[in-house]
Amino acid sequence: MTAEQHPVTGLDEVVHQRVRLGILTIAHEARRAEFGYLRTQLDLTAGNLSKHLSVLEAAGLIELEKGYAGKRGRTWITLTPAGDVALAEEVGRLKALIARIETNPEAR
Amino acid sequence: MTAEQHPVTGLDEVVHQRVRLGILTIAHEARRAEFGYLRTQLDLTAGNLSKHLSVLEAAGLIELEKGYAGKRGRTWITLTPAGDVALAEEVGRLKALIARIETNPEAR
Repeated sequence: MTAEQHPVTGLDEVVHQRVRLGILTIAHEARRAEFGYLRTQLDLTAGNLSKHLSVLEAAGLIELEKGYAGKRGRTWITLTPAGDVALAEEVGRLKALIARIETNPEAR
Repeated sequence: MTAEQHPVTGLDEVVHQRVRLGILTIAHEARRAEFGYLRTQLDLTAGNLSKHLSVLEAAGLIELEKGYAGKRGRTWITLTPAGDVALAEEVGRLKALIARIETNPEAR
């Protein structure tokens, strides 16, 4: 990203995409988020959530842990250290973007 | 979006998508942004920029104005009042999301 390019060019699409940003935020809060909880919180189908989890896992930002709660299969999602860093970088870039928008109050 | 759903579910994909968010931010700053300027600022191909401009125009968030600068055809992009409102709502939701992330500092 060269100096004169806009801060938005520094946003990582893997992190910034609306659903994935929600997954990372909830995993950050919960430290360990269960698949079903993520699905209801983000109002998603299981297939849609799985698709986004695969993208985040392939990027090394989350880890998936399969297990059981009683007799029922469960999947838990945790942030990797790289996931924490990526979320912090996204927050930093969003703040820069917001500051830029707010230093140009609507001129109309 | 029900109360217990995550703030990220309130984000509007038309606005939140990385390139489109950049277009709206620059149009907000510049009040009237020229196609070529947007293209270099956002490091895009003309085709990719046009695709995103069509999505924003169809959503009523921007207006496209065709004209000439000397003998060369030009296109200018301006935010509509609805575009200003949509950008302000995106900023409000991003701030809520950031506040939520930052009130859960990394617990590791």
